[in-house]
Amino acid sequence: MRAFTKILTPQEAKDAFARVFAPAALDTARVLLGQSLHRILAQTVAASSDLPAFDRSTVDGYAVRAVNTTRASATAAITLQLVGEVLMGDQVKFAVGEGQAARIPTGGMMPTGADAVVMQEHTVRQDALVAIERAAKVGENVVPRGSDAVAGAVLLSPGRRLRPQDLGLLAGLGVSDVLVYRRPRVGIIVTGDELVAPGQPLHGSGIYDMNTYTLASLVEEAGGEAVLYGIVPDNLALLTERAKRAFQMCDVLLLAGGSSVGEKDFVANVIGGLGEPGIVVHGIAIRPGRPTILAVADGKPVFGLPGNVVSAIVIFDHFVRPVVQAVAGLQERSRPGGTVRARLTQKVTTGDREDHLRVSLAEQTGLLRATPLPTGSALITSMVRADGIVVVPPHTAWDEGTEVEVRVLP
Amino acid sequence: MRAFTKILTPQEAKDAFARVFAPAALDTARVLLGQSLHRILAQTVAASSDLPAFDRSTVDGYAVRAVNTTRASATAAITLQLVGEVLMGDQVKFAVGEGQAARIPTGGMMPTGADAVVMQEHTVRQDALVAIERAAKVGENVVPRGSDAVAGAVLLSPGRRLRPQDLGLLAGLGVSDVLVYRRPRVGIIVTGDELVAPGQPLHGSGIYDMNTYTLASLVEEAGGEAVLYGIVPDNLALLTERAKRAFQMCDVLLLAGGSSVGEKDFVANVIGGLGEPGIVVHGIAIRPGRPTILAVADGKPVFGLPGNVVSAIVIFDHFVRPVVQAVAGLQERSRPGGTVRARLTQKVTTGDREDHLRVSLAEQTGLLRATPLPTGSALITSMVRADGIVVVPPHTAWDEGTEVEVRVLP
Repeated sequence: MRAFTKILTPQEAKDAFARVFAPAALDTARVLLGQSLHRILAQTVAASSDLPAFDRSTVDGYAVRAVNTTRASATAAITLQLVGEVLMGDQVKFAVGEGQAARIPTGGMMPTGADAVVMQEHTVRQDALVAIERAAKVGENVVPRGSDAVAGAVLLSPGRRLRPQDLGLLAGLGVSDVLVYRRPRVGIIVTGDELVAPGQPLHGSGIYDMNTYTLASLVEEAGGEAVLYGIVPDNLALLTERAKRAFQMCDVLLLAGGSSVGEKDFVANVIGGLGEPGIVVHGIAIRPGRPTILAVADGKPVFGLPGNVVSAIVIFDHFVRPVVQAVAGLQERSRPGGTVRARLTQKVTTGDREDHLRVSLAEQTGLLRATPLPTGSALITSMVRADGIVVVPPHTAWDEGTEVEVRVLP
Repeated sequence: MRAFTKILTPQEAKDAFARVFAPAALDTARVLLGQSLHRILAQTVAASSDLPAFDRSTVDGYAVRAVNTTRASATAAITLQLVGEVLMGDQVKFAVGEGQAARIPTGGMMPTGADAVVMQEHTVRQDALVAIERAAKVGENVVPRGSDAVAGAVLLSPGRRLRPQDLGLLAGLGVSDVLVYRRPRVGIIVTGDELVAPGQPLHGSGIYDMNTYTLASLVEEAGGEAVLYGIVPDNLALLTERAKRAFQMCDVLLLAGGSSVGEKDFVANVIGGLGEPGIVVHGIAIRPGRPTILAVADGKPVFGLPGNVVSAIVIFDHFVRPVVQAVAGLQERSRPGGTVRARLTQKVTTGDREDHLRVSLAEQTGLLRATPLPTGSALITSMVRADGIVVVPPHTAWDEGTEVEVRVLP
């Protein structure tokens, strides 16, 4: 048995890890536009031509020269000569000259010579003539060519997570496939003689493994591809062999369980043997999640996560997710939002560790109230009932009614 | 040509739709736990047994009878006789009696007779004896059987969207597959003579279809399965045929384009012919998105969305997403969060329609500031740059600096 070498604060741990880990670019892949939602863009996207590529009408009506309508009103209509009809999708082969107009639908291409559109409800058509009952200004009801984007403008940059509207823009540019980063493969190994896979019978004091599917889900949500390496008993040789295999195949490796300092805790030894520089942090002043290991081996991040599932979730949330996202190529600033302010329904105190408190949220007479959930790190129901997380600094006593910031869990 | 029959406010439109649409339960499917993330649960989940199923130690140390340690201290250790070692996963076959103790690892099963655990760092072991240097209270360092959940307790209810921690709980209960609702099939048809699929060459005044992939992405994010029926030219017979086919195969139908009142706007006719009661709302006082159709045909929701992609996104967001989620079986209250308060960087005014204004957000000296983006409903870049949406009521004038609520786009 050996003690944790030095317990770092969460921020010290993050800083220490950041000093030895620089995410390297993963390979890229070209995927069909329809398969690219939420993928991380690996290319610069510039407008290949003006968008829209021509002046377009925003209404149904008549394309005119604005100057011809200056004196038009409901009581003194001005009559123009119809020279044609714009058809959606067709090339417009006529021009609108002095005293002329052309029928045009919403989205239609403006004919040469016309510089405004009069809405249909302000016109009266009589065979080859149209009476205009309202004056139009130059550019009225027209979206000019290039107003959405001018040719050559950089619209999307590498590192962006593609949203539905981004796919719309790419489609609008005629793009049918895009270059994205490969999703990082995140290997997951859980260790423990007591662990049994769900669906299998329990014996003795066996318990079901909650970590595999929880961590796999968190990995998927973070944009990684979870690769499951199953349950390994507390056996140094077996764990070493499994970890080395997973490490070779994956970009990030998670080992859950066995990272506290017990006689059978092989995880530190196993992680230490994977590559240089090895273990950077072992033990963090966080609650839950103290026996966490942060390591880097040959440029790949390796995490030793607590066996208790609630601790594993908190540590994933705080330390692993940002790393998986960085390896995935994500370079966006985070959008505001995702936190709310709420008042505690009961007193909260902490000792010498930063507490990542699970809370449920309820609105009561217009005020949002946060109720702390049971703190036991083995109690998965506390995380199931949680709407959010409140970070409470060490050596803190917050009274009932204190306003706190809650990070809302998705 | 006919005018919109009656323009409703967004709330009136929602109410009118709700009066004729009652989401019916879809079929269910049993899926493996590892495939169930973000699916909507279709069953009640109760604890099949106590969780944990036995008292467990939360630390490495020695299981004792608390009463035997009452007078223990660092200067006056109490010596207990070792009667065994708890091994993870094994049945514990010995009991801890008066004056006795047993070695126990974190998570280990408490032996009969023991009611507390003394942490290893407060003990000194000497062969078959262990010196206890600190008094333990009854229950100290022990998670009692059933403290996470007692047998029979209802833990998850139908209509819940499964989160990573829910999969952890299900795993902990030994569940390897779960009953979920089938994802609703949402058919997407876009109409317009001018539309060309991305990747195909443009001719005449053709433009690329932005709606198919945007809407498909929004459907997927809402928990539906997008079924693409492609681009249909402005031809009543073709559109009718395609819509009827899609309507038969799908649970929800979206038709984008052609829902304003132009000579070639067949969408209202097509939707009206799909079933009873038919069109409920045609025209909403919202900007962008006025020419929207809300309909119900034989119990299935049908939406006529504007052809302009920005309008289509706003209308999806406001009217379609909640319906897709309801059809998907989602019954959860929405979690707080997802909105932030910010100050406008410029004046905003509205006419007689509710404006769903796109804004970008930036933090400046601790204050969040919202900058309105160009309002043209054809400008997809406004939606690409948007961090959120501000709903501005009709006939409003908000000065620069006004504090507004922004719904943050994911």
